[in-house]
Amino acid sequence: MKFVEKTEFDFIETIRRRYSLTKIGDDCAVLPKNSKTDLVITTDLLVEDVDFKIEWSKPEFIGHKSLAVSLSDVAAMGAKPVWAMLSIGIPPEIWKTDFVEKFYKGWFSLANQFNVELVGGDVSKTPDKIVIDSIVAGEVKRGKAVLRSGAKAGDLIFVTGKLGGAAGGLNLLESGIRYDSKDKAWRKNLLLKQLQPFPKISDGEFLRENNLATSMIDLSDGFSGDLAHICRASQVGAKIYADKIPFHKNLYPVANSGAEKLDLALHGGEDFELLFTVNPKKYFPAENEFKNRRFFQAGEITANVEIIELISGGKSKILQPKSFRHF
Amino acid sequence: MKFVEKTEFDFIETIRRRYSLTKIGDDCAVLPKNSKTDLVITTDLLVEDVDFKIEWSKPEFIGHKSLAVSLSDVAAMGAKPVWAMLSIGIPPEIWKTDFVEKFYKGWFSLANQFNVELVGGDVSKTPDKIVIDSIVAGEVKRGKAVLRSGAKAGDLIFVTGKLGGAAGGLNLLESGIRYDSKDKAWRKNLLLKQLQPFPKISDGEFLRENNLATSMIDLSDGFSGDLAHICRASQVGAKIYADKIPFHKNLYPVANSGAEKLDLALHGGEDFELLFTVNPKKYFPAENEFKNRRFFQAGEITANVEIIELISGGKSKILQPKSFRHF
Repeated sequence: MKFVEKTEFDFIETIRRRYSLTKIGDDCAVLPKNSKTDLVITTDLLVEDVDFKIEWSKPEFIGHKSLAVSLSDVAAMGAKPVWAMLSIGIPPEIWKTDFVEKFYKGWFSLANQFNVELVGGDVSKTPDKIVIDSIVAGEVKRGKAVLRSGAKAGDLIFVTGKLGGAAGGLNLLESGIRYDSKDKAWRKNLLLKQLQPFPKISDGEFLRENNLATSMIDLSDGFSGDLAHICRASQVGAKIYADKIPFHKNLYPVANSGAEKLDLALHGGEDFELLFTVNPKKYFPAENEFKNRRFFQAGEITANVEIIELISGGKSKILQPKSFRHF
Repeated sequence: MKFVEKTEFDFIETIRRRYSLTKIGDDCAVLPKNSKTDLVITTDLLVEDVDFKIEWSKPEFIGHKSLAVSLSDVAAMGAKPVWAMLSIGIPPEIWKTDFVEKFYKGWFSLANQFNVELVGGDVSKTPDKIVIDSIVAGEVKRGKAVLRSGAKAGDLIFVTGKLGGAAGGLNLLESGIRYDSKDKAWRKNLLLKQLQPFPKISDGEFLRENNLATSMIDLSDGFSGDLAHICRASQVGAKIYADKIPFHKNLYPVANSGAEKLDLALHGGEDFELLFTVNPKKYFPAENEFKNRRFFQAGEITANVEIIELISGGKSKILQPKSFRHF
């Protein structure tokens, strides 16, 4: 697990252009279902020792997270999840344990919270690593899915929750700390944010139903990287205020200075909050509901195409996205 | 790659019952789309050194086959394929080669033959093996998808092509022979049947449109195993005539005796032909079209629930399904 630049995105972009793929490039593909409804669909591949480690987690958490990452993509479209498929590849020695049974227990526990039905899947052997492909489909009012491409200069930038917690949890795991239900609350909070993230389905649906978000994405790569996706898709820029970035409340022990906290919040991946933009005229009537839901404003959209400025201590500097990705 | 019994099926059956999953158990899940159309959807996980070997194949063939196995599931429902998603996990050393580019070339070459649109996917790193998850969706007239569960005693059993070719190709690969475009036709035929199978979309659609098949499945596990799936789902039995089993024309060099050929044809997996049942009253008017399409009758459905009899040299014996599966 490391911070790296592009190439995966470049590759997808190359394939997208070469084969004229118009449905690729958002959190989900949007496909017409009937006269009232669109289907949105996403797939996420999770590989042992790249996306998760058995000794860092629990089978139930891995099952939960496999579904959560895809539910989060559905949330980012403002859609309601409906059904899922799940493919798993298991090495023979894991097959003999109760891993798979506990994995499904974690998966179904989350699926049942959203009435998501498992409709298909595949089970296969692998030589030595667990692989999981999670597929989730949702429904949204026809033509109303919230895309990455709708942000306009002047829109306000919000996130649905505090940032950096998942990266803080990753730091703990890397330093040898494991989840223990009897541990102190702050450590459990950070570890669970990393190991058992909760997808913001309700917030996504609220924003879509009230027509509030001009663009939306889920924070899987990290705030800076995902904001860059919005800027590229919308052909806009952004201005971010360092003192407005909402830090996860338990970051102190893993990030002593303000600069370290900011780094985790801006570039740490997998918080699975939603990042969205809203027209100021629509924001003001919704202000109270935004406060109730604990949405935080972090900045605003500018006309400075694909440039993200970070305002800190009265000074402005260019923020380079550093995304958590595999390649 | 080996012939083994059950356990994967047992596990899926356990999960299906425990969580009351009603959409699982056919080649595809059938989901209502609109008042006229159902969506059918399937996913297949392919793992390097379990489902394919790089040194046995070509990247283009692996791309082709990844899509073909899922298209074959759509064909088995009598549906028309419409869109697909593709998740791939690639080890760093493969990522540096032109494997992925050639893989997509093979994938799109087949996709374009059926106007299948790639609408999504994921690209990830793996520690050392390639993994591919193929997802294909198709459309079929509402309520008209052909299931495994509709066979009735007295129905005739047909296959859409000759059998054992893919298993013959696997034998060649296991004995060290590789595909060479300048090689003799018989060897290329067997190897291509294994490495680049062609999904029987047109045959599946023909059978569905003319309301001819009472049940259908694609031959991925092998004739005996897939017929057993039909018998279980339909709660019927079957009688198979050894002298009616259509052998692939090039089996002779890899199977010297009739018994060896029969073994490849009955138990060899991955021919990706369709196995279907038809009411005799509907068959006779369609007899000429069945001949044109080179469909072969192999036996008939009986009331002897889950018992498959093999009639050979005037004697009957119980045929035990031996499926090509991973566990």
